[in-house]
Amino acid sequence: MAASKQKDDTCPTEGNHTECGKRIMAVRDALDIISGKWKLPIILALTFGDKRFKEMERDIHGITAKMLSKELKDLELNDLVKRTVYDTMPVTVEYSLTDYGRTLKKLIIELHTWGEQHRKRILGRK
Amino acid sequence: MAASKQKDDTCPTEGNHTECGKRIMAVRDALDIISGKWKLPIILALTFGDKRFKEMERDIHGITAKMLSKELKDLELNDLVKRTVYDTMPVTVEYSLTDYGRTLKKLIIELHTWGEQHRKRILGRK
Repeated sequence: MAASKQKDDTCPTEGNHTECGKRIMAVRDALDIISGKWKLPIILALTFGDKRFKEMERDIHGITAKMLSKELKDLELNDLVKRTVYDTMPVTVEYSLTDYGRTLKKLIIELHTWGEQHRKRILGRK
Repeated sequence: MAASKQKDDTCPTEGNHTECGKRIMAVRDALDIISGKWKLPIILALTFGDKRFKEMERDIHGITAKMLSKELKDLELNDLVKRTVYDTMPVTVEYSLTDYGRTLKKLIIELHTWGEQHRKRILGRK
């Protein structure tokens, strides 16, 4: 295939490093939110519905209470997860995805689709 | 909003941890390929067209020759980037995205779209 210098809408401003830098920054912002060992398992667990802390600790294999607590706080700070305290006896605390958290769905599906075919492709080469 | 135990096609098999684990694995596979400091800048640089090593070193601000070389090898190994040696005098080496590398485009656009609105949202809150 001949070298193509044609522009691509992934980064449409050839030679404009500021614009391109902004794009990379936006992509990295998204990666920062979802990368790491536990963020995605927590978000995926909450796509099933609201959960208590203990339920999540049990459902997400290998996570410690300390890590879960830290990650939930991060996700709350980014407005992706909501913590609700119910006035019951004893008090009930439930975590849920916010509407905003649900906007990650399309991106997660895209990551899943690409990752799955990539794994098949790599394994198929052996 | 009431707690919804409704299933979600992000992970449609409620209670089935094996299936859910596979999904998380696929998502992590995709993240492994594109996360890190330099993979995306390199992929984005190559969406403009084929490039020589020196051109990339100049275009991607802050990258060292050693890092660029390492990352290009990783990307080659994953079949995302192709290294072509031309029989010229002196020998010319060019890097290009493979057709497979171009399949990342949709995912990168999705990351960019989400990251951009997330940045706006976070900055808007201050």
